[in-house]
Amino acid sequence: MPETPVPAVRALFFDVFGTLVDWRTSVAREAKGVLEPLGYSADWLRFADAWRDEYQPGMEEVRSGRIPFSKLDVLHRRNLERILPRFGLAGLSEEAAARLNHAWHRLDAWPDAAAGLARLSVKFLLAPVSNGNISLMVDLARRNRFPWDAILGAEIAGDYKPKPRVYLAAAEAFDLAPGACMMVAAHTNDLAHAAACGLRTAHVARPSEKGPGKGEAAPSAPVDIAVGSLMELADRLGA
Amino acid sequence: MPETPVPAVRALFFDVFGTLVDWRTSVAREAKGVLEPLGYSADWLRFADAWRDEYQPGMEEVRSGRIPFSKLDVLHRRNLERILPRFGLAGLSEEAAARLNHAWHRLDAWPDAAAGLARLSVKFLLAPVSNGNISLMVDLARRNRFPWDAILGAEIAGDYKPKPRVYLAAAEAFDLAPGACMMVAAHTNDLAHAAACGLRTAHVARPSEKGPGKGEAAPSAPVDIAVGSLMELADRLGA
Repeated sequence: MPETPVPAVRALFFDVFGTLVDWRTSVAREAKGVLEPLGYSADWLRFADAWRDEYQPGMEEVRSGRIPFSKLDVLHRRNLERILPRFGLAGLSEEAAARLNHAWHRLDAWPDAAAGLARLSVKFLLAPVSNGNISLMVDLARRNRFPWDAILGAEIAGDYKPKPRVYLAAAEAFDLAPGACMMVAAHTNDLAHAAACGLRTAHVARPSEKGPGKGEAAPSAPVDIAVGSLMELADRLGA
Repeated sequence: MPETPVPAVRALFFDVFGTLVDWRTSVAREAKGVLEPLGYSADWLRFADAWRDEYQPGMEEVRSGRIPFSKLDVLHRRNLERILPRFGLAGLSEEAAARLNHAWHRLDAWPDAAAGLARLSVKFLLAPVSNGNISLMVDLARRNRFPWDAILGAEIAGDYKPKPRVYLAAAEAFDLAPGACMMVAAHTNDLAHAAACGLRTAHVARPSEKGPGKGEAAPSAPVDIAVGSLMELADRLGA
């Protein structure tokens, strides 16, 4: 795949779920931690996968205009209610369901994330442009030492990626042209939509995101830069 | 003035202009730096005061609904155009006017601000709830090492303080009840409106904000805490 040189990028925008944090093993661990003491048992990785499978359909309700914008925490809770019966968890108390839903605020970063962001932060403005809500992004940042300049993304834009408004609202918040911003993600689809809005793009391979060998080992469409870690991205961007 | 004990505050929201940064001497310095090399001269502190005098009337256009929400950078520029003739600067080039308008992105903090915020950050979530736009807040944070968890305030709310929406949108972004948030400001008016929305309040005295002796040495209405610096606020809040 041809890689073109990257001019005058001032800000890096990051996808978070899968790109910076390992949602799958973290949600499985949190589900186990909340539910096993209550006497429930299940294949917690399969539970995490089932919950995540409701993610795109849940956001599509908003993107299509069928329901008004709601924070991702609200969609996660609705998605959770959908899968609970399948795992024999239909009788869960409100308190336990709320604590379980908050699992998404307690995700752990991939090992290179914090150190890579720290290097990139010296040269670039950094912000998450995630579908996660502000409080969720703040909790993940505190937990994992993500050095954000601002929390941008879906809640600021009032819509969900990959709708153009989300990428463009982020660039506008920083007073930057789209071409001065680079979207960094482990998902080709996210990057293709960012590129269509004029942003530069960097793909970070997270080959185990959805289980061993079940993540994107490489982009499936052209991107400006393709790397295997944020440290490599920092190298490539001279940061 | 009676001071009541403060329960269960989780987030501190900060006013910025005057409370954390010394806009007056900074704008005067920046105006001098931009304009004197172009052959202009003026009393630059008086120029800063004149520009700031247009601040509330400019925002009132938005608050009253007469014009749609515009970022503070846009209002600052409009306000600048209003005062330029009075200082013999009507012929300023577009490039110089843009550089001058950006003076508000280059303000210096009061000496206690960064160290106080660093201490408070260990115990509380911190965000600016300012009328400044996101890019302006980000530039001031980079310049002065403000450790924000997120940039909240007018641009998120789509309106200007002291409209209730601005305080309430900030609490909602953090998923907190208003009573779990404390507004910190050098201006009693800001705090009185925050208190009316249910927030806790802390007054920081900045007696020289508008010139020697021309700032609020103490609040003129009841607040939860009144201090002389952010270090004292950290002491009072056990941070």
